[in-house]
Amino acid sequence: MESKHVTGGVTAPVGFTASGVSCGIKKSGGKDLALIISDGKAYAAGMFTKNRACAAPVTVSREHLSRGKAKAIVINSGNANACNGTPGLKNAADMCRMTGKALGVSGNEVLVASTGVIGVPLPMEKISKGIGRAVKDAHEGGGTDASEAIMTTDTYAKEAAVEVEIKGKKVRVGGMAKGAGMINPDMATMIAVVTTDAEIQPPIMKNLLKEAVDGSFNCITVDGDMSTNDTVLMLANGVSGVPVGKTGTSRRLFAEALGHLLSDLAEELVKDGEGATKFIEIIVKGAKTEREARSVGLKVANSLLVKTAFFGEDANWGRIVAAIGASGQKVDTRKIKLYIGDEAVFKNGKGALFCYQTVDELIKGSEIRLVIDLGNGRSVARILTTDISYEYVKINAEYRT
Amino acid sequence: MESKHVTGGVTAPVGFTASGVSCGIKKSGGKDLALIISDGKAYAAGMFTKNRACAAPVTVSREHLSRGKAKAIVINSGNANACNGTPGLKNAADMCRMTGKALGVSGNEVLVASTGVIGVPLPMEKISKGIGRAVKDAHEGGGTDASEAIMTTDTYAKEAAVEVEIKGKKVRVGGMAKGAGMINPDMATMIAVVTTDAEIQPPIMKNLLKEAVDGSFNCITVDGDMSTNDTVLMLANGVSGVPVGKTGTSRRLFAEALGHLLSDLAEELVKDGEGATKFIEIIVKGAKTEREARSVGLKVANSLLVKTAFFGEDANWGRIVAAIGASGQKVDTRKIKLYIGDEAVFKNGKGALFCYQTVDELIKGSEIRLVIDLGNGRSVARILTTDISYEYVKINAEYRT
Repeated sequence: MESKHVTGGVTAPVGFTASGVSCGIKKSGGKDLALIISDGKAYAAGMFTKNRACAAPVTVSREHLSRGKAKAIVINSGNANACNGTPGLKNAADMCRMTGKALGVSGNEVLVASTGVIGVPLPMEKISKGIGRAVKDAHEGGGTDASEAIMTTDTYAKEAAVEVEIKGKKVRVGGMAKGAGMINPDMATMIAVVTTDAEIQPPIMKNLLKEAVDGSFNCITVDGDMSTNDTVLMLANGVSGVPVGKTGTSRRLFAEALGHLLSDLAEELVKDGEGATKFIEIIVKGAKTEREARSVGLKVANSLLVKTAFFGEDANWGRIVAAIGASGQKVDTRKIKLYIGDEAVFKNGKGALFCYQTVDELIKGSEIRLVIDLGNGRSVARILTTDISYEYVKINAEYRT
Repeated sequence: MESKHVTGGVTAPVGFTASGVSCGIKKSGGKDLALIISDGKAYAAGMFTKNRACAAPVTVSREHLSRGKAKAIVINSGNANACNGTPGLKNAADMCRMTGKALGVSGNEVLVASTGVIGVPLPMEKISKGIGRAVKDAHEGGGTDASEAIMTTDTYAKEAAVEVEIKGKKVRVGGMAKGAGMINPDMATMIAVVTTDAEIQPPIMKNLLKEAVDGSFNCITVDGDMSTNDTVLMLANGVSGVPVGKTGTSRRLFAEALGHLLSDLAEELVKDGEGATKFIEIIVKGAKTEREARSVGLKVANSLLVKTAFFGEDANWGRIVAAIGASGQKVDTRKIKLYIGDEAVFKNGKGALFCYQTVDELIKGSEIRLVIDLGNGRSVARILTTDISYEYVKINAEYRT
């Protein structure tokens, strides 16, 4: 990789400040309001949940992004502001307006996201005070505070930043994220923010972001549940003086750095999966199309039977083959080869002769690698997931109690 | 309903005998080989898993059904004969051949099904002896024995039979089934057998069977996992002297009886779900099409978040709305009404004012009814499912240990 890690999260790029404060939404008293500010206005892009029951902040941010520019991002945790009807939309817009007012810009120039419980009105008085404090607190080293303020059931904050040299100048890309899917399944789910001091026009940024998200956050799963609030927001303030073009070296280098950053964050999200005891990497190769590879990998990753077998440390390859067969793709089981680690466990349409002891040791590890060769083409996908444990059921059965 | 319950399961219709014996496939020593015999040859039809990794008996039975007639059905439990390559196909065909030989018919006139662990060769010597004994044991009251011999993780055997008068004559339809999906998720999964003494030509029977299965077994779920072995087989021996036509009264009455029978069996399968503590009925109405209704209902029923919330006795309607939104259907959350029992918990795009105590009592019951009104049309679907408990994870983590 040509990009290297640096510290600072979303405030690693030049020209960004951030803060994370406690305004009283979370009963625990933990930080629950994050703010990221670009010194000047920044180009902006975003990606959102496809859930038809999307939350109010998703609707509002989508609208504000149509301008292609933003000054700040305000995010609360502890309350998803989802399924709150028209008052919910007003509250999300008010969060932008209040933040804009404190920063001397229009509310349209602020993006918003929320995460937490569904169907409970936002406590706007607390949020209003919180925004005031967050604006005052914002500072260049504030990335970590912000990453802590977006946590819900995450057990630790996730932030990362990378630096890459483009045309002799240093460009930084910073990011933070919070849990998704199985990882944090009470909706409210995945939120990520990316900042950079490169200069990137919105259409190019949107394209770069989609590519990087498809190769990172969209390859992790999860319990098949799609949140009402999934949001990825990106700001590019151009302070480094480095433009990123539609094609060429600058695009290639920046895309690599952005991909590196988001892959790191995505891996952290899986590793912090609720109640997870195993980190499972599924490589699907020999697929006709990338879509086929992804579809097979996701079906295996989301199979409850596969997940519970891994939790039980049982190399039950039959469940994996059955999940592949159930993917809806035109696979031919006679051509499929299935490996746990480097050990072939299934080929020629039946169980392979494998060393039981080797596979048993692999399956008892905390990181497991499955390779599925469909024998059908050249496309590949890599999906990350976890097992499912008693703890997962407990966390999700008792989430609101 | 015009049909009424009678006893006898698959041997309730005239002209059928059955047996269930232990031949040593199951370590427990439990019954593991079932046989259903029609006195004369019967018209036959079947429905099978769409899993591309289908088991050998599925392939063999599909082939034998192309003749449209069968004399008997042989089924083993404890071993799925799936993912066993070419030897697996030979063993499935041999089961038919052995049964046919003992009954004096060709192997092509026998249908076969298997359920149990994947990827382990069938112990053919044991099965051969078992078939010999099962043929000797077959008797008119043998339906219950047969239904016991197809169980895997089921906690009780499921059989039912109904009688209906068509054109002044009595017709009986008998059936037995074993667990599916979440219910019995180690593949091997759902098997059902239907017998009747009506006379039904194969194309008409296929059509009747599809209709009844769509309204029963295909409305229960399950963990989203599709088995390698799902099989429904039906024999109609015509002994009652009552022909069932393509249309008209005889078809209507028979369809009602068959639907009644399969719905009863499907409900039993859900109630015996692995580790289930709640029986959940999901009615989706106001849908544009039946497909939309089913799709929404299945998404809600299969949502891990919804299932764990029910297990936790938490009326977390936000998770239900989010699952509806994630169904891929073009629903409009502002039009949706959601009820737990008769209590509206969500309407006009936000949480409704409901009596907390009433909903709390409903959610603590062992049978829960959800009604989802999409406000989008007139189509309806009814989906049955269960919650997901610690016990489910335990059963599936430890299945082979």
